[in-house]
Amino acid sequence: MTVKHGFYYNKNHDDHLYMDETSIKQIIERLSSPPTPFVLYSLKQFSHNVSTYQHALAELAPMRTQLSYSMKANYNPHLLTILKSSRVMLTTVSGGEMQLALSSGFEPSSIIYNGNGKTDESIQMAIDTGVLLNVDSLFDLEVIFQYARKLNKIANVLIRVNPDLSDSHVHAYNTTASKTSKFGTSIDELEPLFTRIEENQDKWIRLYGFHCHLGSTISNTQVIVTCVDKLVALFDTKRFPHLRFLNIGGGLNIDYKRYANRTNEQPEEQIAIPTIEEYVQAIKTPLQPIAELVELIVEPGRSLIADACILITRVLGQKQTGSIRQLVVDASMTECIRPALYQAYHHIDTIVSSTTDEHTLYDIVGPVCESGDFLGKQRYLPKALARGDFLAIFDVGAYCSSMSSNYNMRPRPAEYALDEHEQIKVLRKRETNEDLLRTYCVD
Amino acid sequence: MTVKHGFYYNKNHDDHLYMDETSIKQIIERLSSPPTPFVLYSLKQFSHNVSTYQHALAELAPMRTQLSYSMKANYNPHLLTILKSSRVMLTTVSGGEMQLALSSGFEPSSIIYNGNGKTDESIQMAIDTGVLLNVDSLFDLEVIFQYARKLNKIANVLIRVNPDLSDSHVHAYNTTASKTSKFGTSIDELEPLFTRIEENQDKWIRLYGFHCHLGSTISNTQVIVTCVDKLVALFDTKRFPHLRFLNIGGGLNIDYKRYANRTNEQPEEQIAIPTIEEYVQAIKTPLQPIAELVELIVEPGRSLIADACILITRVLGQKQTGSIRQLVVDASMTECIRPALYQAYHHIDTIVSSTTDEHTLYDIVGPVCESGDFLGKQRYLPKALARGDFLAIFDVGAYCSSMSSNYNMRPRPAEYALDEHEQIKVLRKRETNEDLLRTYCVD
Repeated sequence: MTVKHGFYYNKNHDDHLYMDETSIKQIIERLSSPPTPFVLYSLKQFSHNVSTYQHALAELAPMRTQLSYSMKANYNPHLLTILKSSRVMLTTVSGGEMQLALSSGFEPSSIIYNGNGKTDESIQMAIDTGVLLNVDSLFDLEVIFQYARKLNKIANVLIRVNPDLSDSHVHAYNTTASKTSKFGTSIDELEPLFTRIEENQDKWIRLYGFHCHLGSTISNTQVIVTCVDKLVALFDTKRFPHLRFLNIGGGLNIDYKRYANRTNEQPEEQIAIPTIEEYVQAIKTPLQPIAELVELIVEPGRSLIADACILITRVLGQKQTGSIRQLVVDASMTECIRPALYQAYHHIDTIVSSTTDEHTLYDIVGPVCESGDFLGKQRYLPKALARGDFLAIFDVGAYCSSMSSNYNMRPRPAEYALDEHEQIKVLRKRETNEDLLRTYCVD
Repeated sequence: MTVKHGFYYNKNHDDHLYMDETSIKQIIERLSSPPTPFVLYSLKQFSHNVSTYQHALAELAPMRTQLSYSMKANYNPHLLTILKSSRVMLTTVSGGEMQLALSSGFEPSSIIYNGNGKTDESIQMAIDTGVLLNVDSLFDLEVIFQYARKLNKIANVLIRVNPDLSDSHVHAYNTTASKTSKFGTSIDELEPLFTRIEENQDKWIRLYGFHCHLGSTISNTQVIVTCVDKLVALFDTKRFPHLRFLNIGGGLNIDYKRYANRTNEQPEEQIAIPTIEEYVQAIKTPLQPIAELVELIVEPGRSLIADACILITRVLGQKQTGSIRQLVVDASMTECIRPALYQAYHHIDTIVSSTTDEHTLYDIVGPVCESGDFLGKQRYLPKALARGDFLAIFDVGAYCSSMSSNYNMRPRPAEYALDEHEQIKVLRKRETNEDLLRTYCVD
């Protein structure tokens, strides 16, 4: 019997929603009247996602490969301890993230610092500690030189290349490599950077590789192949003898709609999302010209953590407004802004079997005083749902907690997981009103 | 000579940007190398906005009127102390806001608790302390009855009416009174609420009035007149003898584009926004039928605080990507999500005179790793802007700090004001990495 991981409806048993081997109903009972909403992490699902990537990468041997986790998806420090023991690298995008990566015990050479607008302090921190820097632009490079000279150290860098590619299925806010994107340097504008690096090579700087990032909801491997082709062509080891890393950022989408047929009458057109194995294999062929030299770094965030979390919310009530039936729940845009910001789909469902209940069509909205505060539109859920009933909002592991706010003075929710004995473990305490007011000064 | 307040370019002097009587340049010098971004509050502008509303409302005498501040716009506790001394009421939308209002010393009868999804705890708090409750729906009313009985107290309520009206200029996310809005009860569905209130009148409940909210960027007074007409028709004092309050929520827009001609080549079509006086006067005529009975509560948020704050940011650099010139600054969507979420305009400008400089067209973007992280598009600013130069992002008082996040592990910024002696006063300390990690549990 295989060990179960993640969130699934146990069809052979009670059809309830399970996390790993435990039903959500049981977890809620054990928490006894927990304040809602709260987040549940399946650490087994997270570890499974990590090892799926690592195994897929190992298939590329003898090519050297590394997995790096994009911390901006979710920076819960407990995840970092798991990643560290699995020898995963970290991709950070701010001084704060880099500092947390360092204090969590990651080797500087296992940390990449990326960003189109790095501050002086964080560039200094990266050079001083030996963190790898992704150079975004000429101005970014000049600041790096400035601090390498000041610290009398060599900066270890990759260049972020804008390959002018995009996946038409990706929301404009998640597209990061089109011609007019704010990130990276276009291939035809790289020469000034190359010249400056050559002038300072082994004195203040070493060019270790190239990075590109295609956005975070990729579902088209052909885009990745084209991108890798363009980057491989840049590997001029005569000019830059340290070249070694090819860092493919931006990750696979996940199938947010895999349960959609449970609550939608007419499921929308499905976008076929490649598996992790397909994604990694797609990179292999274009890498052949530099296979012996290259060390491939694959840098997902979303596809490692998104499906390892759900948000549990209570129904507050239902009401009819015009033609719309509103299901009001106590979760909101403050915990999950993706529907409001990207019109993103998150599956929302009951935690116990409801297949025999009469269903009706709802908009699922939160209590925040703003019409943008919706979580799902036009979903079929049981007609009898009433105040106090629990619902699960799926796939909130990525870009939910890390983007959360305290709008309407709402505390950030508690986050729980199960330990190896299936006992509840607190990963984050629910914020208090005092936490929200801590930095304010009143006389 | 009139006392200056707020933010303005001192055309008769140096053409620099001023806050009250002090130039921003001077403030920055006094802060000596402040971490950016940070927020500056003109408390004089805020007090001016409050007194403009209060004077306009006083003009309606002998009609009784009250000003109530919508806390969700900005809950900085220092603002509450100013409002308290000016005898302004508070409109709250969560248990957290209500608790802060109470602990700031506001009388419960000066606090309104509003929301489409109130929790049990917060309904209990409101009834127990005597805070006015806006009943949103039948299910909301039933929970109120439940806690009134449990506490053996009378709940003081208004009903939030959905008048099925909207201002076509308002973004869909800020429209709160269209037929399918999640807020309030339609006029033709009020009778079940009336019946339940009548059955329990003076036992568990007293109906004090009606509330409607038209959204938060209103620029059309005709919508308000129609709305007031509809609410006045509901004042049946024979049936509900305690009826007294007419609570008009949702506020005026502010002229976010008043300085746009400084940085735009072709200013967009201007929407004429009524003045506070025009807004208040517009409510007067439809109120005549109940003039002697009614106590009008006007409930703005945005138009009280938005123009009393600016966000100061440093330029990190500029780069060309395809046809777009990008000006990268250190402020982002984490401090000001309105451009990303509502495609909102915030004026962005230099803090020192730049009229003689050569200008060029920029997209102004932040350092957050997300393409949605932009602050302004296609603005003319000096060509020579370089790393370290300061810019001001205008009108960030409302729905910026209160909606802020720690995405990319960015600390929330410091907030400063000037005291009565024009000395710098800290209203909020910049968050530290420790603040961001405080609620996480790592073993």
